[in-house]
Amino acid sequence: MPTGLVVSAHAADFVWRAGGAVALHAKRGYRMVVVCLSFGERGESARLWRQPGATLDQVKSARRKEAERAAEILGAELIMFDLGDYPLRVADEDLFRLADIIRDLRPAFILGHSAEDPYNYDHPLAKNFTHEARIIAQAHGHNPGAPVVAAPPLFLFEPHQTEQCNWKPQVFLNIDEVWDIKRRAFECMQAQEFLWEYYTRVALQRGLQATMNANSGITITHAEAYQRVFPAVVEELA
Amino acid sequence: MPTGLVVSAHAADFVWRAGGAVALHAKRGYRMVVVCLSFGERGESARLWRQPGATLDQVKSARRKEAERAAEILGAELIMFDLGDYPLRVADEDLFRLADIIRDLRPAFILGHSAEDPYNYDHPLAKNFTHEARIIAQAHGHNPGAPVVAAPPLFLFEPHQTEQCNWKPQVFLNIDEVWDIKRRAFECMQAQEFLWEYYTRVALQRGLQATMNANSGITITHAEAYQRVFPAVVEELA
Amino acid sequence: MPTGLVVSAHAADFVWRAGGAVALHAKRGYRMVVVCLSFGERGESARLWRQPGATLDQVKSARRKEAERAAEILGAELIMFDLGDYPLRVADEDLFRLADIIRDLRPAFILGHSAEDPYNYDHPLAKNFTHEARIIAQAHGHNPGAPVVAAPPLFLFEPHQTEQCNWKPQVFLNIDEVWDIKRRAFECMQAQEFLWEYYTRVALQRGLQATMNANSGITITHAEAYQRVFPAVVEELA
Amino acid sequence: MPTGLVVSAHAADFVWRAGGAVALHAKRGYRMVVVCLSFGERGESARLWRQPGATLDQVKSARRKEAERAAEILGAELIMFDLGDYPLRVADEDLFRLADIIRDLRPAFILGHSAEDPYNYDHPLAKNFTHEARIIAQAHGHNPGAPVVAAPPLFLFEPHQTEQCNWKPQVFLNIDEVWDIKRRAFECMQAQEFLWEYYTRVALQRGLQATMNANSGITITHAEAYQRVFPAVVEELA
Amino acid sequence: MPTGLVVSAHAADFVWRAGGAVALHAKRGYRMVVVCLSFGERGESARLWRQPGATLDQVKSARRKEAERAAEILGAELIMFDLGDYPLRVADEDLFRLADIIRDLRPAFILGHSAEDPYNYDHPLAKNFTHEARIIAQAHGHNPGAPVVAAPPLFLFEPHQTEQCNWKPQVFLNIDEVWDIKRRAFECMQAQEFLWEYYTRVALQRGLQATMNANSGITITHAEAYQRVFPAVVEELA
Amino acid sequence: MPTGLVVSAHAADFVWRAGGAVALHAKRGYRMVVVCLSFGERGESARLWRQPGATLDQVKSARRKEAERAAEILGAELIMFDLGDYPLRVADEDLFRLADIIRDLRPAFILGHSAEDPYNYDHPLAKNFTHEARIIAQAHGHNPGAPVVAAPPLFLFEPHQTEQCNWKPQVFLNIDEVWDIKRRAFECMQAQEFLWEYYTRVALQRGLQATMNANSGITITHAEAYQRVFPAVVEELA
Repeated sequence: MPTGLVVSAHAADFVWRAGGAVALHAKRGYRMVVVCLSFGERGESARLWRQPGATLDQVKSARRKEAERAAEILGAELIMFDLGDYPLRVADEDLFRLADIIRDLRPAFILGHSAEDPYNYDHPLAKNFTHEARIIAQAHGHNPGAPVVAAPPLFLFEPHQTEQCNWKPQVFLNIDEVWDIKRRAFECMQAQEFLWEYYTRVALQRGLQATMNANSGITITHAEAYQRVFPAVVEELA
Repeated sequence: MPTGLVVSAHAADFVWRAGGAVALHAKRGYRMVVVCLSFGERGESARLWRQPGATLDQVKSARRKEAERAAEILGAELIMFDLGDYPLRVADEDLFRLADIIRDLRPAFILGHSAEDPYNYDHPLAKNFTHEARIIAQAHGHNPGAPVVAAPPLFLFEPHQTEQCNWKPQVFLNIDEVWDIKRRAFECMQAQEFLWEYYTRVALQRGLQATMNANSGITITHAEAYQRVFPAVVEELA
Repeated sequence: MPTGLVVSAHAADFVWRAGGAVALHAKRGYRMVVVCLSFGERGESARLWRQPGATLDQVKSARRKEAERAAEILGAELIMFDLGDYPLRVADEDLFRLADIIRDLRPAFILGHSAEDPYNYDHPLAKNFTHEARIIAQAHGHNPGAPVVAAPPLFLFEPHQTEQCNWKPQVFLNIDEVWDIKRRAFECMQAQEFLWEYYTRVALQRGLQATMNANSGITITHAEAYQRVFPAVVEELA
Repeated sequence: MPTGLVVSAHAADFVWRAGGAVALHAKRGYRMVVVCLSFGERGESARLWRQPGATLDQVKSARRKEAERAAEILGAELIMFDLGDYPLRVADEDLFRLADIIRDLRPAFILGHSAEDPYNYDHPLAKNFTHEARIIAQAHGHNPGAPVVAAPPLFLFEPHQTEQCNWKPQVFLNIDEVWDIKRRAFECMQAQEFLWEYYTRVALQRGLQATMNANSGITITHAEAYQRVFPAVVEELA
Repeated sequence: MPTGLVVSAHAADFVWRAGGAVALHAKRGYRMVVVCLSFGERGESARLWRQPGATLDQVKSARRKEAERAAEILGAELIMFDLGDYPLRVADEDLFRLADIIRDLRPAFILGHSAEDPYNYDHPLAKNFTHEARIIAQAHGHNPGAPVVAAPPLFLFEPHQTEQCNWKPQVFLNIDEVWDIKRRAFECMQAQEFLWEYYTRVALQRGLQATMNANSGITITHAEAYQRVFPAVVEELA
Repeated sequence: MPTGLVVSAHAADFVWRAGGAVALHAKRGYRMVVVCLSFGERGESARLWRQPGATLDQVKSARRKEAERAAEILGAELIMFDLGDYPLRVADEDLFRLADIIRDLRPAFILGHSAEDPYNYDHPLAKNFTHEARIIAQAHGHNPGAPVVAAPPLFLFEPHQTEQCNWKPQVFLNIDEVWDIKRRAFECMQAQEFLWEYYTRVALQRGLQATMNANSGITITHAEAYQRVFPAVVEELA
């Protein structure tokens, strides 16, 4: 059974940015695992904090439930690292924990955040954390008993303001057959309702762009875009 | 029958830089077509010019024969535009000729030169010529009777000093099963014997890099590397 | 009376990419002038070419009418250079013509295409043409009798697939008060109906991004984004 | 009363790099606040260390006095974080302290260091510290009682060897009306007298460049240059 | 006798940007040759055009005299191509003429303009013209009788607004021993007196930067900065 | 007696990447010092870990012996920091230790890792550690008694997959006279035998490239390539 891994800085990132990939591969029989490094409790829960008397625990609990519901809809297992946000900070033991998850899963691909983001310091940190964990999972001297992984490709999903992040689509993934699932997962995110339409429009824009880049003549309505970190290895160019 | 198109500035570029792709796809049943914009007669035939009394016609003729033999070995059809080199110069009628070839072939992919090369002004010009011809082949108002092409991907093959050209591998193509053919094609290029070993080493370096980037655990000995101009459109990420 | 100049490669570019700026400044009393270098007759009129028996003259005529209606709605004067497209080609006399228009108008700003576009060779060429004409308009030895211009800023409007063009928003222009006008101008473009929704979504995405970048707390629903070519000169930072 | 905030890695950076902006906005009624993360005691006080028997406390005390005098001349309040230099190191509590200052001030703009500097590791660190603090000041879950800030723009002032830092002017600020004040502030910096003339020349070069980029025909003799981190949001382009 | 070649788009560029290198190498026994592609008659002679009744011939003649005097002071031979400016346009026969000059001189180095310049389209064109001519001078098939050159390094001298041109100093040349000569050459340029002080300050800024980058402890007061196009080949790193 | 310093993240990096520079300068009378931050025990010792019952101490010991033998062959002194790898982590006391080594040695040059490497997080960290230590060694307030260094140039040696690291050769060093020594040092590295041929081919590729970039007509068979961090300061351009 092939697997895919998504590493999300905050509770909702995997939904907006990679929910289509999660649902699509889950539908095709992949085991999909989402690691959330934080709940986005401090920095991405404005609406919850506007409620009188809100506490950190309440906010975290609310966001956990949203993420769990969304993961269930998308067909993914969810692992919460609960490392805090704004700022996210990671220790080497967290790194080893993720490296061991990568070793256990032996994923066919890993999805993570963009390398830059002037609006968000947690996102690039999460990318580096994911990227370094993948490399440690390849090191024979890390937990010498456990088998190392080969070279799972790392795809960077779409940040909120792409051009400011110097992030560039290199792969368009057709998500038409799971679009309704992705949209339903959006609707779990009560704390960020203003993003539902934003990311619906992102999916439509990427859909038309995918259509324009496809050589097959296919029409794609909804797509997700990814940047690759490593080159692809292929047996044929077409 | 699927097709592939290679556009080479000089007679030998397609051999060093894309000979593996040509042979591999030919072997798999593709119709492979190579367009050479020039013979490399002025700028890449030093050895021939060192022969006493060498003339331009002799040099062109010798290089044509080499290119024909190499194309035959690789399994490609060869079209010579004979536009001159050092400097290569192109007119709009040449552009339309290439656009029409693209329309006729409806290629599954196009291979061309790098976008920059501080050692060679003909190479980037050939890239732009190829790139613009592909776009014109998509324009409904160009030869309105003939059907337009969709969006054939354009891959840029490896320049001689890659880092100076800001060229970056995004795709490694395993050419092990045709390496002996590519090497035999090298040996047609009597004018540039010093490059045989250079590009054999390039194939070996790219082979080890491909092995290190493959998630399948495969060992690749010889590879070619390409940079993509357009994003890929996929139905699955792995 | 202040003026603004837009230079558009094809008949419709100024509508999708800068229609809000045109309408907004027109409404505020600017004289707005749009120069179209071509009608987009060959490369951006697919729908018209699908009509049986379509001729180049018919297509040009149809696109001219669309552009005229759109310019009228937006409140701009329209100048057609009719230089052809796919490929657009410019001569020095065209350059001098545009330089003289710049001198006549003494624009407060000039709007043009992005510097790169892998999907379109006419767009970067139009940008360079505009940019060079602006510089020639500054040269005292060009038409020595006529007064030179100072340094009109050049803003590059949004290409279709921004990230592929390495184009980055540096300025968000609030176009809420003219959005309905811009949308009506879209609807003149019968040849490219599929773009109406695409560029409506662009306006909405840029609107939310503008809101997120504004320090004033303002909510912006529709915006246009621009990249600057030259630094701004200011008397205060806020 | 509008405010502006400057975050300086070492005691003198705000004088050379942003002294004009401080004086200009102070003169126009802004409350200007300068945060110095260190005194530059180890790395930017060579002249003081050449005095026999110099101690760290003496050097810090001398540099503190210089910075206080300079801030007074420029019209700014000065806050010393005293975090050490060469290397500067910051903790999350420092980050929260700066975030809270940003919340208190609600600045119309923030000025900070360049993103890169191969001659100085403290400068990019100070930029990231400033940038991340600004983002945390926006997070509703940080000190939930206190009102968040909107999106204060961040301008990066000029490093010593600009091209090596990939720093690029996007805004020229006319500082002619406060140039004499900025120059007097230079003269407080007894520890770095060789920089007085250097940064006087910087002001003159930027002045001529500002003149060449201004469309108004104004002549500017002294200017400061800044790079923007975030796009501007505007209601008109001219 | 070693030689050096400078290719200048307009009559005065070689003075401001490379006058120190010319004078220094001339003093050390190099034959220095300056090729001016134009007189800068249209675009860089504002002061001359302000004289009532100025004609193109008068302006060209005045600028020719200035350039000749400056070249004489610096110790260089001057070759005028007279190709026009704003816009500069070059034909292949001009390219071959420069290639043949390069072959005749067999220069130890070539100096040219920056690769980008948003304020000036002639400068990058001149750089490309120089760069391509150097490559053609290496081609055995160009004028087969004449011996080819090896690989003369190409250094790009300083544009007016360096950061806007993405130009970066990689080499600082100490010009202290010829600074007075360079300054005297400035003073021939009556048409651009406002640049005398500007480029004097450039020399001083580069001098201090050179001092800060030198490992020898030397103090340099005046320097010129260059960007390299090709890697250096060395026998020792220090 | 001049000195050179190399800072290597793992035990073998200095051999593959800078072994020629070490041997060449040692032969010419330089004192050459190599600092290894780790043994590469976890991440670059796959072959050793494949031996049944391998322990961390055994692996470190084996790699230490290899590095010692290689250093002896190359003619260098070896200092082991033993900071661990995959992940390498550094503390400020390590930084001060390296800064003090730099002060003691007063090196004519420092060699370090590339600034980026998507395959290895230890390499860029080692580069930054080296770079920051060099800057601290210049700070008068660090160990005020000891004399500061001037500005030793920092050269970045070749990473494994150069283009992925955005690393670009700016200097080719001819290592023909010490190639046999470098090759013998390779053969100490029993843990990474598959790299012997890879880096032999790198030397040959760089050799041919060096030949093509040399203006002297020299033929170079083996070379090493370096990127510079700081500009060079020269007294003559040729």
